[in-house]
Amino acid sequence: MDHRGSLQRMLNPEHPDRVTYREMVDFKLDLCRALAPHTSAVLLDPPYGAGQAIVEGALPGGTALLVSIEATGYAGTGEARATELLPNWSVEKAKRLGASATKLLLYYRPDVEKVAPKQLDLVERLAQEHEKAEFPLLVETRSYPIHDSERDPREFARIQPGIVIETARQITALPIDIFKTEFPTSPLYEPDEDRLLELCRELDRASRVPWVILSAGVDYELFRKEVKIACRAGASGFLGGRALWQEATSAGPRKERQRFLETVGAGRAKELTALADSYGTPWYAKMGLDGERLGTIEQGWYEAY
Amino acid sequence: MDHRGSLQRMLNPEHPDRVTYREMVDFKLDLCRALAPHTSAVLLDPPYGAGQAIVEGALPGGTALLVSIEATGYAGTGEARATELLPNWSVEKAKRLGASATKLLLYYRPDVEKVAPKQLDLVERLAQEHEKAEFPLLVETRSYPIHDSERDPREFARIQPGIVIETARQITALPIDIFKTEFPTSPLYEPDEDRLLELCRELDRASRVPWVILSAGVDYELFRKEVKIACRAGASGFLGGRALWQEATSAGPRKERQRFLETVGAGRAKELTALADSYGTPWYAKMGLDGERLGTIEQGWYEAY
Repeated sequence: MDHRGSLQRMLNPEHPDRVTYREMVDFKLDLCRALAPHTSAVLLDPPYGAGQAIVEGALPGGTALLVSIEATGYAGTGEARATELLPNWSVEKAKRLGASATKLLLYYRPDVEKVAPKQLDLVERLAQEHEKAEFPLLVETRSYPIHDSERDPREFARIQPGIVIETARQITALPIDIFKTEFPTSPLYEPDEDRLLELCRELDRASRVPWVILSAGVDYELFRKEVKIACRAGASGFLGGRALWQEATSAGPRKERQRFLETVGAGRAKELTALADSYGTPWYAKMGLDGERLGTIEQGWYEAY
Repeated sequence: MDHRGSLQRMLNPEHPDRVTYREMVDFKLDLCRALAPHTSAVLLDPPYGAGQAIVEGALPGGTALLVSIEATGYAGTGEARATELLPNWSVEKAKRLGASATKLLLYYRPDVEKVAPKQLDLVERLAQEHEKAEFPLLVETRSYPIHDSERDPREFARIQPGIVIETARQITALPIDIFKTEFPTSPLYEPDEDRLLELCRELDRASRVPWVILSAGVDYELFRKEVKIACRAGASGFLGGRALWQEATSAGPRKERQRFLETVGAGRAKELTALADSYGTPWYAKMGLDGERLGTIEQGWYEAY
């Protein structure tokens, strides 16, 4: 799957290839202007968003910037997906841009022996590069079906918890900083909230680093439910995309789209942020750090800094 | 003269040595919390403010941080002052801290042959270090009396324009990024506004880089007048200290001080910012750059970034 290709398909379902560069940028800047004031960070990609948001003044000064580092899509077959990095882009460039972290999207199935070790190697290499650059790395994983039977959403929901939790275990054993994960399974097929909470607690135990929930384009109401359960189980928040704004892609003229984003989109961002603040585990608590001590600094700090 | 020593003297005129580290930090954090939300940047020093403001949450995310790089006071005699850098501090550390620029305070008299060339050497060396680190350097200059006759403020005001304008010429010939300057002379001794405007225009012609006005602890009403005249003549704004908040040092208990800063102090910051926005020359215009083009970025920007 190709996320940015998917945005083009959302903006022009019949002719995604006719969506222009400027239309892509305008959509991302509209998103950023409307939602970023209500979140602690926003994720943008180099081709259409990161530099553009800064230069065009769409990124509020108080909102952190996360920048993706992988190329759109994947190499290999649909059943054995390998992440490729965006050419001519790097952690050093992200750092120079003033970003606060880079994001690596990884298709991952721990049970696909053909590519899983290569994907882990990539994460490890990047994690070392980031440590050397003193720059945080966020890794996002996405599972995918590899057998015909798994193309049935109900069947996939059944095997997904095992995949998601084992993925968390393997990926966060590497020296990454933040883990962005799928909800362990779809509440559409597992309506028992106690069971969902238990799965998220298992995910929390599997993750050695602070983790956040991704939206994977589910409906907003469903995502809100997932964010609340995940945060109650130990997540530190959310890093959601389409669930917050997907209706905007068909909202008609740009002004109507902007109005939708400034009202409904911003309202969703505020609501989810409030949920994370109320129920989430602060990143430092997940890391076993004392929140009180984090707010202090000793005299002469700058000498050994 | 010692600015930070002077803060201690303001906080406890009879026993400046009894002002504790924590009292200094609290004062700077109170200032930062009250005024920084209304300004584009705030200047703090490593010993008492920069790291402390970040860690204690006093610096709003949308306000840039400038960090001083020189040690308090000066070496040499009162008549031949040489700047010394803060030990165990560096441009690399300021950059790692997330600051947006470093500030170097320079006592400077172009006519004191004993130290002027050394001071210029220091600026040149630092400017090169900053260029290499891709980090902006702001240089602040302060004139001072060197003959007994100059200790008379009226006499000093008479010679000051020549000093200030020649200083601008010499300092901004070096590859620095922003120049923080004294007002060319005191409006107390030169009440003719047309003459003051003409002096500021001369200062503007002498400065090859964007420049801002410092307050040198004059009364707020006087500083407001200076900021307006300087901005009309080509300045890009102000970087003021005591003129905005000096009454706070004698405002009684901490709560009263905070109330003063949040009302009077914040009001002054807002008023001066509005003056700079209305009358000032944008930094890019001073640098001969096209403001329209600054707001655009070409497709594929990240490849050659």
